[in-house]
Amino acid sequence: MKKFINSPETVVPDYLAGLVAANPDIIALDPSPRVLRRTDIGARRKVGLIAGGGSGCEPLHTGFVGPGMLDAACPGEIFTSPVPDQIIAATRATESGAGTVHIVKNFTGEVMNFGIAQEILAFEDIRPVTVLINDDCSIPDDDESAGRRGLGATVLVEKIAGAAAERGDDLDAVVSIARRVNARARTFSVGLTSCIPPARGKPIYQMADDEMDIGIGISGSPGRKRVPLRQAAEIAGVLLQEVLSDLKPAKGARILTLLSGLGGTPESELYLLYGEVHACLMRAGYDPARALVGNYVTSLEQMGAALTLLELDDEMTELWDAPVHTADLRWGR
Amino acid sequence: MKKFINSPETVVPDYLAGLVAANPDIIALDPSPRVLRRTDIGARRKVGLIAGGGSGCEPLHTGFVGPGMLDAACPGEIFTSPVPDQIIAATRATESGAGTVHIVKNFTGEVMNFGIAQEILAFEDIRPVTVLINDDCSIPDDDESAGRRGLGATVLVEKIAGAAAERGDDLDAVVSIARRVNARARTFSVGLTSCIPPARGKPIYQMADDEMDIGIGISGSPGRKRVPLRQAAEIAGVLLQEVLSDLKPAKGARILTLLSGLGGTPESELYLLYGEVHACLMRAGYDPARALVGNYVTSLEQMGAALTLLELDDEMTELWDAPVHTADLRWGR
Repeated sequence: MKKFINSPETVVPDYLAGLVAANPDIIALDPSPRVLRRTDIGARRKVGLIAGGGSGCEPLHTGFVGPGMLDAACPGEIFTSPVPDQIIAATRATESGAGTVHIVKNFTGEVMNFGIAQEILAFEDIRPVTVLINDDCSIPDDDESAGRRGLGATVLVEKIAGAAAERGDDLDAVVSIARRVNARARTFSVGLTSCIPPARGKPIYQMADDEMDIGIGISGSPGRKRVPLRQAAEIAGVLLQEVLSDLKPAKGARILTLLSGLGGTPESELYLLYGEVHACLMRAGYDPARALVGNYVTSLEQMGAALTLLELDDEMTELWDAPVHTADLRWGR
Repeated sequence: MKKFINSPETVVPDYLAGLVAANPDIIALDPSPRVLRRTDIGARRKVGLIAGGGSGCEPLHTGFVGPGMLDAACPGEIFTSPVPDQIIAATRATESGAGTVHIVKNFTGEVMNFGIAQEILAFEDIRPVTVLINDDCSIPDDDESAGRRGLGATVLVEKIAGAAAERGDDLDAVVSIARRVNARARTFSVGLTSCIPPARGKPIYQMADDEMDIGIGISGSPGRKRVPLRQAAEIAGVLLQEVLSDLKPAKGARILTLLSGLGGTPESELYLLYGEVHACLMRAGYDPARALVGNYVTSLEQMGAALTLLELDDEMTELWDAPVHTADLRWGR
C-alpha cells in the first residue's frame, strides 16, 4: 500500500495536524470531539456554516474552512460520516445568535447523524437549518431509492452560501441561495481505477486497463455501468450529455463548471478534459463563464473526474467571485 | 493506459487549450511557436520573467503565468525541453525595454536550448539574463556531473522574483533576489511509483509494493537509491535530514516549506507528511513560517513527494506574501 501514512488508525488526525500546521492563520483543530474551525470564529455575529462527512474526500470539507466559506467542518473516519458529538460541538462553537446552516450531503449516515445532532441541539434552543445536497444525476430522481447523492455541488454551495454569510446576509437569505445553488447544479462522474482505503490495504474492486466506470459516487463506491475506456473528447461528451439532459439549462445560460479530479489524476489531464467540456458547451450555445479545475472532491488516490455544472444567475456569480481564504480556495484578499 | 487524453501526440496542445479556456482572464496561447503568456503582456514597462521545460510537470510552469509571477512559459513536449523558437518568441513578446530574465532549470537540454535562443536574440540586441536553478541536493555538488537539477526552488524563484518584477524592481534587483532564493533553497524527493508517459504507454520502471525511491528527479527519472517503504514520520525525517544537512540554515531560521506531490498522491497524504516535517522543524529549533502543500512540480501521475526548504529573509517573505494571480497560485487580489 503506497501511501504516506503512519498507521491506518491515525490517518485522519495526522492529516488534520498537517493541514492546521500549514494554515495556522486560518484554521484550528479541536481534537475531541474532532472539529476543524476558523480561528476567528465568534468574532462577530454572522450565520454559521457547518459541513461534515467521511474523510478521504479532501479537500472537501476541511480545505474549505475559512473566511468566505465554512465556519467549521466535522471530519469523520475514512469514508465514514461524522458522529453527532462532532456536529453538536461544531454548532455550539459557531452559533453567534444569527443562526446556523448544516450543509448535509444526501448519504444515509450523514443525514442520520446531522438529524440526531439537531434533536439534541434543540434542547439548548439551537435550531440549525439543513440544506440537503443531492446533485448526483447518475441516480434516478424518484422515490425508489434513498435519493440522489451529494457530490460536487457541495463545494459550490459552500463557496456561494459562505460568501453570502460573510457579507452579512441573514439566515433565510443564506439558506435560500444555498438551496438555489443545489437546485441548479448536477454532477456526473467517471472512475478509471478503484482506491485503497488505508484500513483495507487493497483496492475495493478490480478494473481492467481498458475499462472505466460511469456514474460513480465518492468514497470508492462503484459506478452505474462499466464501459470501455474512451478518448477524452468522448468522455467529455458522455459526462455533459448526462448532466445537461438532467439540468436542462436555459438557452444561452451562463455555466459554472467544476471539473474535480478524484485524487490520482494529474491536473494536466483534468485541464485537457475541461478543454473538451468547454468546447462542447460553446458548441451547444452555452456561456462557460466560470471554471474550477483540480482536486476538490476526491476519493483518496482514485483516478477519475467528476463534472458539475451550475446554471449561474447574477447573485451566484457575484458571490462566487467574492473573496475567499481557505487552505484550498483562496482569492480576492 | 488510464488517462484522460485524445491521443499521445496531442496531449500538450489539448492540455493548454483547456488551461486557457478555464483562465481566459489571465492567459492566452500562441500556438506556433507554442508560448503561453499573460493576456496583459506589454501593458507596461517591467522586467519580463520567462521559464520553460518539458510538459508533464504541471502546474510547472504553465500554471504560474500571470500577474505577480511569470510573463510567459514555453512548454515542451512531454519530458522534453522547449525548442529555441519557443524561447525566442516568448522573449520577443515579453521584452518591454526593462530586460528579461530566463529562469532555467539545470537540465542539459533546457540549458542548451535557452543558450541557443539567447545567441539568436543577441543579434536583435535582446540580452536576457539567465538565472540557473539547481536546488536538487540528491546530487553531489561537485564537478563530476552536469551539476544539480532544478526542482522545487523553481516555483519559489518564479513567485518571489515575479513579485519583485511586478512591483517594478529593475533587472539587477530581480536577478539578484532570484539567485538569492535559489542559493538558499534545497530539494530532496521520494517516489513511490513510476509514471506512464503517454507515448510510451507503460511505466518507465517497475517497483515492488513495499519499496520507494529516494533522491528522484522529475520527468520519471529514477532515484539515487531504492529502499523499503517507511512510515510517513520516518520518510519526513529522511527528507529533512538530506535537505537540512546540505542547506545548513542559521539557528532559529525562518523556513518556507514547499511540499509538492508528484501528481498521483492525494492532498491528504501530502498534508499528513507536511505535519511530520513541521513537527521536526519545530523540534530542531527552526521557525516553519510559511508552507505550500499540494501538486506544484509533478511527473504526470507519479506517486511521491518533493520537499523544498527555503531559508527566508525579510524581503523574500514580503515578496512571497505579495499578491499573485495565476491558474494555480492565486491570492491577495
